[in-house]
Amino acid sequence: MSERAPELAFKAAELDAGDQLAPVRGRFVLDDAVYLDGNSLGALPAAVPGRVEDVVRRQWGELRIRSWDESGWWTAPERIGDRIAPLLGAAAGQIVVGDSTSVNVFKALVAAVRMAQEDSGDARDEILVDATTFPTDGYIAASAARLTGRTLRPVTPREVPGALSSRTAAVLLNHVDYRTGRLHDLPSLTAAVREAGAYAVWDLCHSAGALPVGLDAHGVDLAVGCTYKYLNGGPGSPAYLYVRHGLQERFDSPLPGWNSHAEPFGMRPSYEAAPGAVRGRVGTPDILSMLALEAALDVWDGVTIEAVRAKSLALTDFFLQCVAAQVPEERVESLTPLAHAERGSQVALRCADAGDVMERLVERGVVGDFRHPDVLRFGFTPLYVGFGDVERAARVLGEVLAR
Amino acid sequence: MSERAPELAFKAAELDAGDQLAPVRGRFVLDDAVYLDGNSLGALPAAVPGRVEDVVRRQWGELRIRSWDESGWWTAPERIGDRIAPLLGAAAGQIVVGDSTSVNVFKALVAAVRMAQEDSGDARDEILVDATTFPTDGYIAASAARLTGRTLRPVTPREVPGALSSRTAAVLLNHVDYRTGRLHDLPSLTAAVREAGAYAVWDLCHSAGALPVGLDAHGVDLAVGCTYKYLNGGPGSPAYLYVRHGLQERFDSPLPGWNSHAEPFGMRPSYEAAPGAVRGRVGTPDILSMLALEAALDVWDGVTIEAVRAKSLALTDFFLQCVAAQVPEERVESLTPLAHAERGSQVALRCADAGDVMERLVERGVVGDFRHPDVLRFGFTPLYVGFGDVERAARVLGEVLAR
Repeated sequence: MSERAPELAFKAAELDAGDQLAPVRGRFVLDDAVYLDGNSLGALPAAVPGRVEDVVRRQWGELRIRSWDESGWWTAPERIGDRIAPLLGAAAGQIVVGDSTSVNVFKALVAAVRMAQEDSGDARDEILVDATTFPTDGYIAASAARLTGRTLRPVTPREVPGALSSRTAAVLLNHVDYRTGRLHDLPSLTAAVREAGAYAVWDLCHSAGALPVGLDAHGVDLAVGCTYKYLNGGPGSPAYLYVRHGLQERFDSPLPGWNSHAEPFGMRPSYEAAPGAVRGRVGTPDILSMLALEAALDVWDGVTIEAVRAKSLALTDFFLQCVAAQVPEERVESLTPLAHAERGSQVALRCADAGDVMERLVERGVVGDFRHPDVLRFGFTPLYVGFGDVERAARVLGEVLAR
Repeated sequence: MSERAPELAFKAAELDAGDQLAPVRGRFVLDDAVYLDGNSLGALPAAVPGRVEDVVRRQWGELRIRSWDESGWWTAPERIGDRIAPLLGAAAGQIVVGDSTSVNVFKALVAAVRMAQEDSGDARDEILVDATTFPTDGYIAASAARLTGRTLRPVTPREVPGALSSRTAAVLLNHVDYRTGRLHDLPSLTAAVREAGAYAVWDLCHSAGALPVGLDAHGVDLAVGCTYKYLNGGPGSPAYLYVRHGLQERFDSPLPGWNSHAEPFGMRPSYEAAPGAVRGRVGTPDILSMLALEAALDVWDGVTIEAVRAKSLALTDFFLQCVAAQVPEERVESLTPLAHAERGSQVALRCADAGDVMERLVERGVVGDFRHPDVLRFGFTPLYVGFGDVERAARVLGEVLAR
């Protein structure tokens, strides 16, 4: 196997030399490790520490409450939503940032059920949920079903078209599977859900910032996602909620906090929802985490999501090629589809002793993560991962597995 | 009126000289303004900027995902909850930090209704809510009632004992009224609610860090609050949820995110709630805001909440005395009770042109806030407000109103 190592290293250098995104790496704080865990926690953008220091020392420390207006704190959720929008193929005014992904799944799913009920009454008594989902979505969907008197039915994304019926109220799907890295067919699944008269809620945690989503183009109803993976917002940075323009007037939140009120400082006893995406807000936004995210989004200046996607596929192609060349065949099995149309920006390798193997990789400066019980996960963030990193990661994996 | 000004200044100096909490002011970043808006956004504790910088540069930038374990990120919600606990009179293991106050009100109220239903079936079909509450609590209570099929009935805290019945499932109350600064009688109201077989949810936003709450001593069932007022956690710092030990096994969250799972990294499709306060968690915690809060709590080292309460009452007594001496009587009317047992840590003055008056106060370095339509609000944070500040604030108010 290892006889091909020099050729792969040469190929990596060639690919790096032709990589137009290579200079973007300089916008991050990185070290000598190969960081392939940006699908769990994105690396630190270099602009963030200074911005956070300004937010803490000047905006909070000196201006204090004046910053709610003067430093733009109050409008941050929708302003930062508009910064994320182009990366998701969404026009402005449809995304607000805040709360966790789980909380946003809850808002979106309950609101979807309410719209279905408005359309069709109680006949639509079923919520379909991706059976392969990151578990929290399933737990929250079960809660939404319980509170709205609907039945939850777990199905694989492939089974969704056959499971849709006049009983379907809403469908909660993942764009990219967190475990296998499989990319699901958002355009056709969305079309099928809409055709059935139901509402689609997409979880974009593992696709946002890694590949084009095309929310507006594909008529997605509602979407949520986190910002700490490929959007590099920092640990636990706030999530977002997308509600397409055409549904905003009907978006009836189960968490109608005062930040979503038409007149939040009117202190009125009765609730009246604000127009637009703002009605997806709830309570006071966590400003430090939110403005760190805003600074982190500067790394996207001049970068298109199409260029990121092209490099992402080239990186994962090359990784699979290097693994095939350098890792004993019987030791790992790729769970990630070979077809580009079915691949996100990660490669998942099944490996019997994955937990131990990942520990040894990390010791050798190759950082991926381990998903119970037997998966090695490698995420490829095109903004800061190069082809030389890919070659090294596969080579070290081969060394570890050959022992 | 102004003839007594020198006497008041002398009295202020005397009170400041005898103030054992005076040195604590040095733990904050302050300027020459009199900052009486700590009941909206607490001042910046001096320890915060350095800690946040370490979290950003080293924990995130260098350790990256390793920090979930090595820097204690994963356990921060319950660890910081235990730091807040003594200030609220709670033993450890009953508080988790995370999400906004609104989201925590939702969790607590739905969980309370579910416990009432478990006890008594659907007979308990009513939620009582403080009619004078900060509006978001009322909006969220309406949503909780709608989703659990209960009726929401707004009553004043005074009316609660008479409104309780075998139909009452839960009661949502504020410890201190955000507008008037009135302190409600938590021990007797809690006892009445429990006597009626219902569950009490207390909103502590305007009392936590300002006066003793005694959650355990008074048998409070559930409580929530923010951390950016008298706890100085920073703009939008995460809120907290208290679930008393005896109810934790029964706490059935409407937001059962993966962080509250008994085995969060087991990635199991079915939900099983973790034991203890942890089951109040939802999604990934916002680490920057949360660890800023943790650093902010250092200002409490060696400070008792009883000492804070004593100074708070002395400050508000002295402010009312200075206002009576220096402000034209017909220009303002205090909405804040004179009785200590009914007073929080703020003074609210009704004033016809309150909006304009507050602008002029701020221009002169006295920072309070304005609440629609006619309230001047002054919050007194005993950790950093002195008696000289109080005297100056009242004097400047007198000057502004005399013109």
